[in-house]
Formats: sequence, structure tokens, C-alpha cells
Amino acid sequence: MIFVKLNKAYIKQNDKINFVKLKERWTLLKLNINPQNKNFLHNWAKTIVDKPIFTNFIIVIILFNAIIIGLETYPAVYLPNKEWFYFTERIFLWVFTIEIVLRIIATRPWYTFFTNSWNNFDFIIVASSLIFAGAYFISVLRILRILRVLRAISVVPSLQRLVNALLSTIPSLGNIMLLMGLIFYIFGVLGTILFSELSPEFFGSLHLSLLTLFQVVTLESWASDVMRPINAIAPWAWLYFISFVLVGTFVVVNLFVGVIVNNVHAANCVEEDGQEKIKKELTIEEIKKLREEISDLKTLLLKEQKINSLTKE
Amino acid sequence: MIFVKLNKAYIKQNDKINFVKLKERWTLLKLNINPQNKNFLHNWAKTIVDKPIFTNFIIVIILFNAIIIGLETYPAVYLPNKEWFYFTERIFLWVFTIEIVLRIIATRPWYTFFTNSWNNFDFIIVASSLIFAGAYFISVLRILRILRVLRAISVVPSLQRLVNALLSTIPSLGNIMLLMGLIFYIFGVLGTILFSELSPEFFGSLHLSLLTLFQVVTLESWASDVMRPINAIAPWAWLYFISFVLVGTFVVVNLFVGVIVNNVHAANCVEEDGQEKIKKELTIEEIKKLREEISDLKTLLLKEQKINSLTKE
Amino acid sequence: MIFVKLNKAYIKQNDKINFVKLKERWTLLKLNINPQNKNFLHNWAKTIVDKPIFTNFIIVIILFNAIIIGLETYPAVYLPNKEWFYFTERIFLWVFTIEIVLRIIATRPWYTFFTNSWNNFDFIIVASSLIFAGAYFISVLRILRILRVLRAISVVPSLQRLVNALLSTIPSLGNIMLLMGLIFYIFGVLGTILFSELSPEFFGSLHLSLLTLFQVVTLESWASDVMRPINAIAPWAWLYFISFVLVGTFVVVNLFVGVIVNNVHAANCVEEDGQEKIKKELTIEEIKKLREEISDLKTLLLKEQKINSLTKE
Amino acid sequence: MIFVKLNKAYIKQNDKINFVKLKERWTLLKLNINPQNKNFLHNWAKTIVDKPIFTNFIIVIILFNAIIIGLETYPAVYLPNKEWFYFTERIFLWVFTIEIVLRIIATRPWYTFFTNSWNNFDFIIVASSLIFAGAYFISVLRILRILRVLRAISVVPSLQRLVNALLSTIPSLGNIMLLMGLIFYIFGVLGTILFSELSPEFFGSLHLSLLTLFQVVTLESWASDVMRPINAIAPWAWLYFISFVLVGTFVVVNLFVGVIVNNVHAANCVEEDGQEKIKKELTIEEIKKLREEISDLKTLLLKEQKINSLTKE
Repeated sequence: MIFVKLNKAYIKQNDKINFVKLKERWTLLKLNINPQNKNFLHNWAKTIVDKPIFTNFIIVIILFNAIIIGLETYPAVYLPNKEWFYFTERIFLWVFTIEIVLRIIATRPWYTFFTNSWNNFDFIIVASSLIFAGAYFISVLRILRILRVLRAISVVPSLQRLVNALLSTIPSLGNIMLLMGLIFYIFGVLGTILFSELSPEFFGSLHLSLLTLFQVVTLESWASDVMRPINAIAPWAWLYFISFVLVGTFVVVNLFVGVIVNNVHAANCVEEDGQEKIKKELTIEEIKKLREEISDLKTLLLKEQKINSLTKE
Repeated sequence: MIFVKLNKAYIKQNDKINFVKLKERWTLLKLNINPQNKNFLHNWAKTIVDKPIFTNFIIVIILFNAIIIGLETYPAVYLPNKEWFYFTERIFLWVFTIEIVLRIIATRPWYTFFTNSWNNFDFIIVASSLIFAGAYFISVLRILRILRVLRAISVVPSLQRLVNALLSTIPSLGNIMLLMGLIFYIFGVLGTILFSELSPEFFGSLHLSLLTLFQVVTLESWASDVMRPINAIAPWAWLYFISFVLVGTFVVVNLFVGVIVNNVHAANCVEEDGQEKIKKELTIEEIKKLREEISDLKTLLLKEQKINSLTKE
Repeated sequence: MIFVKLNKAYIKQNDKINFVKLKERWTLLKLNINPQNKNFLHNWAKTIVDKPIFTNFIIVIILFNAIIIGLETYPAVYLPNKEWFYFTERIFLWVFTIEIVLRIIATRPWYTFFTNSWNNFDFIIVASSLIFAGAYFISVLRILRILRVLRAISVVPSLQRLVNALLSTIPSLGNIMLLMGLIFYIFGVLGTILFSELSPEFFGSLHLSLLTLFQVVTLESWASDVMRPINAIAPWAWLYFISFVLVGTFVVVNLFVGVIVNNVHAANCVEEDGQEKIKKELTIEEIKKLREEISDLKTLLLKEQKINSLTKE
Repeated sequence: MIFVKLNKAYIKQNDKINFVKLKERWTLLKLNINPQNKNFLHNWAKTIVDKPIFTNFIIVIILFNAIIIGLETYPAVYLPNKEWFYFTERIFLWVFTIEIVLRIIATRPWYTFFTNSWNNFDFIIVASSLIFAGAYFISVLRILRILRVLRAISVVPSLQRLVNALLSTIPSLGNIMLLMGLIFYIFGVLGTILFSELSPEFFGSLHLSLLTLFQVVTLESWASDVMRPINAIAPWAWLYFISFVLVGTFVVVNLFVGVIVNNVHAANCVEEDGQEKIKKELTIEEIKKLREEISDLKTLLLKEQKINSLTKE
């Protein structure tokens, strides 16, 4: 990032003439990186990236970064050491930038780096930090920096596998989430039509109703806060709420049941593949050998008969 | 609907004479629809209904209808465009009516259309919209219109299967729901007898008690709002509440467990049918072939013995 | 009950003389019921009790009784019809008494009736109604009468099976409930020691603390009502609450998991016994037959060899 | 403990001279405990410790101790009987100390006692009671004494097994708890940045935010208390809360699902090992015997052929 800025400044100062110079240099650079050099750079980056200490170092940096960001939220710590925090942030950004660049170089061909969605995730987080670093939109940058902690998932392999496993259960729940959306929408419109005047706080508009229904489906204060004041005016309101609680929790429970059943089933299948299959194949193997032996016997007997019949003639 | 209204107007204007004319026309119409014509109409409807674009078009219309109904709940959007909303509603109703009529014609014989409960559901929703359209009972019509969004379930096959699967788990839970009802009723009457004077808001009458017990079983504010004020006056009240929470949640948990066990079991059975059976049948098949080979051997040996004994004689 | 009362009155009026008479009558009665008569009574009771209409009639009476008790909780319905409610109560009590007596007579020998715990449950409920009927302790009687609705469980066989199944899961959870009790007790004493002065409403004494912990384990207002006011004074209080919530919900979740695993396992075992076993026994059966055939072959061959060797000699 | 105190007093009174005496005595004691004596002590302790009555007695003492500690929390019971409570506490401490000493002596070699973590747990609880007994830090001692009730887990074998089983499920959940920690931290920092000024009570600092997020993940008053007041000022705040509730409960549910799946799987595997394996091994056994018989047949046939060919020559 600083490099980009310096370049910019350079260009600004010496204007067009310099731009030409830069272009020339770029061409020279491109000429310089002949296949052999490229290979050298690639191999060098690969040996670094593949070392376990590289990953461990990045994990430590991410953790340290997380602690720094956490400390920044305490004004008593942050305000007197503003400069120091700014400085560490620069360093973290440099480290992450170099890491990404090294990992891109270590990939061959380099653009395949972007076929992995976790790599894209890493790249976007670091790249957007670089972009917004100059802009100084404090609030946006602070949120971006905390998102950097999420990189721990992409860097620690076991965490990455877990998150992949968790995300892979979502598509199979697509239909039930569609159904949930349908139920929310219908009850949301109904609630707005029925209660928008009785309880503007909870059902004032469609989006407020949807928010309230989300609260109701988590069973949080659904009766004490939401239903009872409405029911006091419209004594039939319990019908709406109880039917939604029953339908909503029934579908939510089935969502959970779906996840459980999928997982139990998957776990059983994996075990089946491991142990059971071997045994069954063993049984079939044994039976096949038996058959071979018997066919041996048969040929033996047939041969004997032939000999017998020959000697008899 | 508009057609019906026009007819009505026609009849009103020209009174009895016209009624006779209408009757004549009807007879003519009936004569015109000879079997061949009927077949033509049926085939034509069937080709339309069976096209995937027909279903997709209806799904789009339902979605569009849902969005329109959602927008209507915002007075800032609805009030200046009242006519436009009224017009789109007319169009949606026409489209849905034509869709149902086409699907009825495409079914042979047409009355078997009503043997499918999802078809009945579609028909009732559209028919009641047609009936109430003239009556202008705004609130009833608006609720009917939002229920039309539920038709998405009957139109999207994967959603229909899901809802069928969810509904099919309910009968197996019949007994546990009966037990739940019994427990609710007993605790409801008990609560009314014990606390109707202490806490008229929550236990004033049997139906209020049942509503409160439903709130308690969802564990919403059961202690802070319901139990503690009563317990402050009657220090033995916790006995009633804790026993209900324990019994209620125990039964509810078992309800959920029932659903989970049913589903895990079903999933396992399906898998068994798929993979396991094949393997086991393979083993049995192999063993049968073995037996055949051995019986071949036996006959061979017996033949040989006969020959031997014959030659020996 | 009325019969008992009449007898009492009789005895009171004519005092001792009558008592002697009664005793004589009793002896006569005992003499009258000779084995044959007893058999007749037993058989007659048995034919009645075994008829499905008998059970159905009792179910209807229990339901009707439940409705009457429900209606009684509405003063607007009860107060003007006090006599009528009193009268129906008498009839219900008579019907239930006769039912129990018939079922006792129908059991042979009659005292084995009390070996079934559901029969004991029925007997105690009806007997205690009879005992308290004279005493007119309104509140006790009203609670007893509503407990009579529970008899629906013992009368409907499918409900009885369900409740038996639910109760049978409890012993296997004995240890985890013991652990839960231990955790509750330790946290209860700790809470009382730490917070009895800070929050006398929730932790004033050991039994109040245990009640509060039960509320916390259901996650009801544990933070907003219970923890936050204490945490505002003692900023370390969150340690106590979060550790209890974590430990408590962890154990509760494992309680549920235990129930689920037991049930899934039981369901799988039942299925195993049904389908799998048959197939496996089939395989073993086939293999045994194979062996028999082969031993047949062997004896054949041996015989042949003997003949051969004999003929050769 | 009293013994230690007496010794201390002794040493203080007679100072250095006595210390030398004590040292001499200790050497004498060490000389006295020759291997044979040691064995005698060890055997005697072992016979006591192995008796079921020893364990039962300790369980009774722990229960009695628990009741005494419970009673102490009631000032009306404690204050008039202070001395009596102090006296029982002394006795309990003596009993527990003797128990631990006996169990250490009964273990051979004695230091292997500390290889079992439950033994360490017992030792630390009793030892720390002894240490703090002299210091009279009431509050610390009272907490230590209630922790002594936890010893029931280490003494009752079935409880110990259950707790071991529960604890053994924790490591397999390590990754998901790491992920949970990551999510909490990121949302905690985000919440502090976004809402620290809007709602200092809930998001005033990072640790307050983390506490609030724990409350939100238990779904306790997350909407009524936490979100709605913030959402009234910052209308986009629902995005933060709903995303956290969705992500948080999704991960928590998967944590539970993990426990369930692990347990169901383990239960199934155990059953597999028990019944299934036997059957499968039976099948393979049968097939092996078959093969042996067939190879017998083969040798028989070959022998016959040889004889035949020999006789033919």
C-alpha cells in the first residue's frame, strides 16, 4: 500500500516524463523475469509457504492482531497510545500483504490461487484493507480489521474443515428455509394487516412485523411483551400467535432434526465404508475361492472320467 | 368474476326473456361440446399445463402477487396507487382462475382433480377469492389474498414433498399430543382453582390458564412474570409451576425425540434398502451358484460310479 | 358412599342391637356366596368388563366428567347450577365406584387386581374421592376430581403404553439426575453464601436459591432479572452465573441426548431383530446345506474308492 | 490439622532444642517403619479401604456434611448453634483426612495414588481445607467446604463414570468451541465499536459486550432488553443482532448435534461389536470349514487318481 502511494507521489511529481520512465522500467522488469527467474521466485516462495513455521507465524500474527484490536476498544488504553496502535496496524497490514503475495507466487499458475474460495476470502479482506487504508474512513476500516480475525478460519486447517462441513449442511436445508421464509412472509403480512394499529411498535410495518416474528420464533418475550398487550385489546389475537409459535417452532425443530439426521446418517455411512465393507468383501472373497476350488475338483473328476473311459476302451 | 357480474347485469336488464335466451344458449353450448370437441379441449389444456413454462409462469405470478400484497401494507405506497393495486389484483385473480380451469380441463375425468388434497386447497383459495371479490369485505379478502401465497407450496414440487413429509410425522405423534392435551387440561383446571383470585391476569379463567400454560411450556417469562408474583403470596405455588415445567418439557422433549428417532430410523432403513440388500443378495446368490456346482459334481460322480459298476460287471 | 352413609345412620339410630343384626346379616351374606354363586358373579362381571363398549363408556364418562369440571371453574356457569353440578358429581362417583368394583370382581383371585400399578392408581383415586366426599373439604375434593381425568391414561391402552414407555426412560437417567442434584445443591449453597445479602429476593435462603437456579437452567430472565442487578454491585458475579449456565445446560443437554440415543438405539435394535436376523440366518442356513452336500460327496467318493480297491484286489 | 497445630505450639514453646528432639524422633520413626512394618500398615489399610462399608460410610459422611453446610446457610439455625457446627466441621475434616491417609497408605507404591486425577481432586480439596482451617478466612473456607460435596462424584463409581463420559466428549468439540470463541470475539469487538455509546450498559466495553453476547446466544431477553432500545436509535442494528443469533444458534445447535451424533455412533458401534461381529465371524468360520472339507475331497480324488493310474500301469 505504501508502495502504491509512493509510486503515486512519484508520478505526480515528475508527471508525464516519469510515467514513460515507469512504463520502460515495467517492460524491463517483464523482460527480466524470464522463465528461469520466475521459477526461482516461485520455488523460493513455495519453500517458504510450505514450511509449518510460516503458517504458525501467520496464526500468531492473527492472534496478536486480534488482541490489539480488542485493546483498541478500551479508550483508556487506546487514546494515550494512538501512534503505537497506528504503527502496529501498518506492520500487520504489511505482513498480511506479503503473506498473500508469497502465497500467490507459490501457486503455479498464479491465477489458480483464486479458484479456492478461502484464498479469495483472504485476498478480499487484505485487498480491501489496503484500499481503505488511504481513505481513512475510520469506522469502515475498523470493521474490516476485525473481519481479518476471521482469517484464522482459513489459516487453521481443522477450523477450515469444520466451517466447510457446517456450510455444506446448508444447501440440503434449502427447501425448509424456503418454507420458513414463506411462513414468515404470510404471517408478517397478516400481522401487519391485523395489528399495525393496535401495536405499532411490533407490527407497525411489514419489516417490523418480520423482526417481531423472528423474536417470537426464538420464544423471547413472545407472550409477556408481544402477545399479552395485543390480546388485552383484541381477545382473538392469541390464535395468531399460538398458531405461529406452533408452526414456526415445528418447522425450526424439523430444521434441526434434518441437520441431526443428515449427520447421524453420514457418520453411520462412513463407518459402514470403513469396517463393514471389508468384512463383507472378505466373505464374498472366501466364497469365490471356494468356487474356484470346486471347479478345480470338477475338472479333476472330468479328467479322471476321460482317462477311465479311455482305459476302458 | 367480471363475466359473472356482466351476466347478472344482462339478466337484470332484460329480465325473464333474456333468461330463456341464456338457457337456450347453454343448451346449444352443451350440444356443441361433443366428445370430439371435449377431447380437443382436454388435449389442448393438457399440452399447456404439462409445459414447464406454465408452472414457472404461475410461480412467478405467485411471487409477484406476494410482493404486491407486501407493498400494499405500506400506506405510503398503497394510498396514492389504490387503483393500480386494484387493477393488478383483478389480473392476478383472472390468471389464477384460468390456471385452475385449465388444470381441471387437463385432468380426465375432470372430477378426479378433486381427489388430490393440494388441488382442493388451490381450488378453495381461488374460489373463495372469487366469491368474496364481489362482497368487498376488505379484511376477509386481504387475508384470503395473502393465503394465496401459500399456493407456492402446492405449485413447487420440492416444497410440496417437504410439507407432505412434515405433515406425515404428525399422526405418529397423535398419542403424545393427546397426553399433552390431558396434562394441559388438568393443570389448567388446577391453576384456575388455585390461582384465579391471586392472579386473575394469568389464571382468571380456564382459557386464560391454558394460554398461560402454553406460555410456561415455551419457558417464556414463566418465572419472572407468572410464578414469582404468585409465589410471593402463596409460598407453595412453586410446586405447581416446577412440576408443570418438568412434566411439560419432558413430554415436549419426547415429542421432539419421537420426530428425530422416526427420521433417523427412516433414513437408515432407506439406506439399508439401497446398498446393504444388494450385497447380501449377492452373497446368497454366490452360495446358490456354489450349491449348483456341487450338485453337478454329485451327478458326475454318481454317473461315474454307475459306469464303473457297469464296466465291472 | 350413599350406601355407607345410610348404614351409618341406621347403626346410629338403633345402636347396638342393630349392629348385632348387621353382623348376622353379614354372616348370612358370606354363607350365601358359595363358590358357585361367586363364580356366577365373577363370570357375569368378566363378560361385562371385557366388552369394548364398557371401556368406551368409561372413556366417555371420563371425558364428560372433565368437561363438567372445566365448566365448574366458570362462576357464571357454576353458581346458578350448583345443585345440578353436585348431582352429576354424585352420578360420576357412583359410575366409577361400580366400574372399579366390577373390575375387581372380574379379576380372579380378586386381590391380584392390586398387583397392577395402574389398577392401584384407579383404585386410590376413586377410593379417596369416596372418603373425602363426606368430609366436604371443597378444595381437596376439587383437586381429587380433576386428578380423575388422569384415569384416561389408565383406561386408553395406547396412552397407557406411551406413559409406560416415557416412565421407563427415567431410571436410565438416574445418575445424570443425581449429578444434576449435586450441581444444584453446590451452586445453591454457594449462591446463598455469596448473594443472600445482595439479592434477598433470588438468593435469600437455600430454597430460594434452588428455585432461582431452576429458573436460570430454563434460561428464563437469567441475565436481565437475576444476574445483571447482582453484577452491577459485585462485578465478579457473572463468573458464578456463566459457569452455572454452562455446566447446567451442558448436563441438561446430555440428559436429552441420553434419551435420544436410548430411543434411536432401541429403534435400531428392534429393526435389526426383525429384518436383518432373518437374512443372516438364511445365509448360515445355506452354508450348512452346502456342507451337508459336500459331506455326501465325500462319503460317495470314499465308497467308490472302497469298491474300486475291492474290485482291484 | 490439630496435630499440626499442636506440633507448632510445641516447637514455639521449647524452640530450637525441641526441634532437634523432633528431628531425632522422626529418624527413629523412619527406622521403626522397616519393610515388614510398612507391609503390615499397607495391608491393614488395604483391607479397610477395600471393604464396601468404608466407601458407604464416606458417602454417608459426605451427604451428612452437605446437609450440615446447607443448614448453616439459615441464620436462624446457625447462629444459636455456632459451636456445634464448628465441632461437626472439625470431625468431618478429621474423617476426610484419615480417609485420604488410609487410601494413600493402601496404594502401593504410595505416590501412584497421585497418578489418578480423581485422587488428586480428593487430596487437593481435603488438603486445602486443612491449610485454610487455621487461617479462618471464613468466606474462602465456606466455599471450600461446599466443594467437598463434589467428592460424592469421585466416591460413587457410577457417578465418576458418568462425569468421565461427559468430560470425554469435550475434546472432540474443541474445534467448534474455538470457532464459537472466534465468532464471540469478532461480534464482541464489533458490538463495542458500534454500540458502546448507544447502550453503555450492554456494550460499554469489550468484556461487557462478550457477556451480553452470551446472554443473546441463550436467547434471553435478546430482543426486548438488548436489541429494541438500540434499534430505536440505530435502525440498522437488527442486522447485527439477527446475524449473531443466526450464526450463534447455528453453531450451538451443531455443537449439540455433534454430541448427539458422537453418542449415537458410539452406542451403535458398541452394539456392532457385541452381536453383529459374532454372527459375521460365524459365517466366515463356516465358509472356512467348507473349504477345508473341499480340499479334503481334492486330496481324496487325487489319491484315487494316482491309485487308478498305478493299477492301470
